Amino acid sequence: MTPYVLAIGQGWTVQQALDHVRRHGEDSETLNVVYVVDESGKLIDDLRIRQLLLGDPGSSIAGLMDGLFVALRAQDDQEEAVRVFSEYDRVAIPVTDSKGMLLGIVTVDDVLDVIEEEATEDIQKIGGTQALDHPYMQTGYLQMLRSRASWLVLLFLGQLLTLDAMRFFSDQIERAIVLVLFVPLIISSGGNSGSQAATLVIRAMALDEVSLGDWWKVMRREIVFGVTLGLVLASLGFLRILLGQSLADAFGNQWSRVGLVVGLSLTGVVLLGVIVGSMLPFLLRRLNFDPAASSTPFVATIVDVTGLVLYFGIAAAILL
Amino acid sequence: MTPYVLAIGQGWTVQQALDHVRRHGEDSETLNVVYVVDESGKLIDDLRIRQLLLGDPGSSIAGLMDGLFVALRAQDDQEEAVRVFSEYDRVAIPVTDSKGMLLGIVTVDDVLDVIEEEATEDIQKIGGTQALDHPYMQTGYLQMLRSRASWLVLLFLGQLLTLDAMRFFSDQIERAIVLVLFVPLIISSGGNSGSQAATLVIRAMALDEVSLGDWWKVMRREIVFGVTLGLVLASLGFLRILLGQSLADAFGNQWSRVGLVVGLSLTGVVLLGVIVGSMLPFLLRRLNFDPAASSTPFVATIVDVTGLVLYFGIAAAILL
Repeated sequence: MTPYVLAIGQGWTVQQALDHVRRHGEDSETLNVVYVVDESGKLIDDLRIRQLLLGDPGSSIAGLMDGLFVALRAQDDQEEAVRVFSEYDRVAIPVTDSKGMLLGIVTVDDVLDVIEEEATEDIQKIGGTQALDHPYMQTGYLQMLRSRASWLVLLFLGQLLTLDAMRFFSDQIERAIVLVLFVPLIISSGGNSGSQAATLVIRAMALDEVSLGDWWKVMRREIVFGVTLGLVLASLGFLRILLGQSLADAFGNQWSRVGLVVGLSLTGVVLLGVIVGSMLPFLLRRLNFDPAASSTPFVATIVDVTGLVLYFGIAAAILL
Repeated sequence: MTPYVLAIGQGWTVQQALDHVRRHGEDSETLNVVYVVDESGKLIDDLRIRQLLLGDPGSSIAGLMDGLFVALRAQDDQEEAVRVFSEYDRVAIPVTDSKGMLLGIVTVDDVLDVIEEEATEDIQKIGGTQALDHPYMQTGYLQMLRSRASWLVLLFLGQLLTLDAMRFFSDQIERAIVLVLFVPLIISSGGNSGSQAATLVIRAMALDEVSLGDWWKVMRREIVFGVTLGLVLASLGFLRILLGQSLADAFGNQWSRVGLVVGLSLTGVVLLGVIVGSMLPFLLRRLNFDPAASSTPFVATIVDVTGLVLYFGIAAAILL
């Protein structure tokens, strides 16, 4: 915000206002707009300089006023400023304090940087890094290591649960070793569908297309997508097993049951992925965290652990 | 771009210019700037209206000129416009044709929308979806399914290679079933570190912090990060095995070799992840694809397949 702003009184004449612009225009970053304030300094209107130039020099400012103006308050956050600029298509917007006193103006070129910074932060968080303070190449080795290691270690500790899940099911694995062949395929499918859902919802939240209250609407949509996408992948997975079996007897005499287990698991894990991916941003926002912290690796880690349990659970019911 | 722009001649007087602003200012979206053109209509300077207001009405425009101005050419793309606005902190920039003729102006509020759209596209691609044409909630079921299914199916087909990798090593797996316990942990660690690297590089490219020629500098940095981060995760993994072995004899009498295999594999797979993640955006840009298409799931899929080969390869050398 710049405090240099062209403020004129409503009792002035057009000529007085033009003289004021001539005298003080040099300090001002303002554009073609002057701001009308009342005796106490409260903002009551904005006028384009061209309205002054076109007006009769002897007429009063009050006669040109329409009382319609857009302003930001000093306590508004950057996101609100971005929203107002986007909505009103202005190049400068005045800023007032909580009592409506004119403090200065914000120009849209300041907002450009804010928008780019916010998008960068979101993208870095989605990718599973703490947001960096400096550009990639200017970030020191130690700071970069810290930002990345903290998340990687956290994810690794979460991922260690897959070890427990696998150990828990090691009896089943030993009895049907064919099951382990599909482990990477199944957990990754859940992670991928979850990453998609999470990034779509995070971005929709950042652009105010989706608010906290929409969680149920989003959930309903995502359940439909999850089941459909899951069935698509399940069909492909089943086809692959059918093919492998016909060509090379790759999956033993229980191949059709294996196909059923894999197909059901893929459907379930994709549905799980989109539900976790789409709801985690809502949960984080509800808890006043940044929704973008539900990074794609974070979603993938949750889905990996739960997906393994789902897969071996289904296998235990059908195959063993 | 708007074609309504205040253009004045260099031979005019300040008074003539002000009269022109008075007469034609109404049509113009311009701000406080008028553009000086020569006889043929070629842009030769910009002047602030305040320079006119402050000047002697009888003096000539040529006397106020400094010949310094910033302009866009009509053939420049949106990204170039964003770059120029960010660099020069202007609220409006004139546009010329290839011969320098003034065509109109672009105001920064038009650029706001471009920046947000581009960030949205990048985020959606990073998350492994085709960029959507409409906001999340307004995108129809069918279009949303198409955008998501196309990527998911592609990733799934890639992921099917993990099935072949697992089958290729099934002899080793049967001889040392303990190996399969670590499969999810190892492939996910590679995927996570790759996602980090990819998003950092994609964003740095989008902001022009990193260009194609920097690939080797980035590679060197990422190798250092990859080895360091890999060793951190390897230590944690080894500690976990040591702990599990001490408390519950969880990994059999070969546990120290298992620990070595897992530690080496984690280091290798994290290094692999950051190299694939950081170099894929360069490769895609080199091939004239959008670097953002090296989505985190895409990177994870490549690293899953190669990571499995690495893991079982190391296991074959040390354990079997």
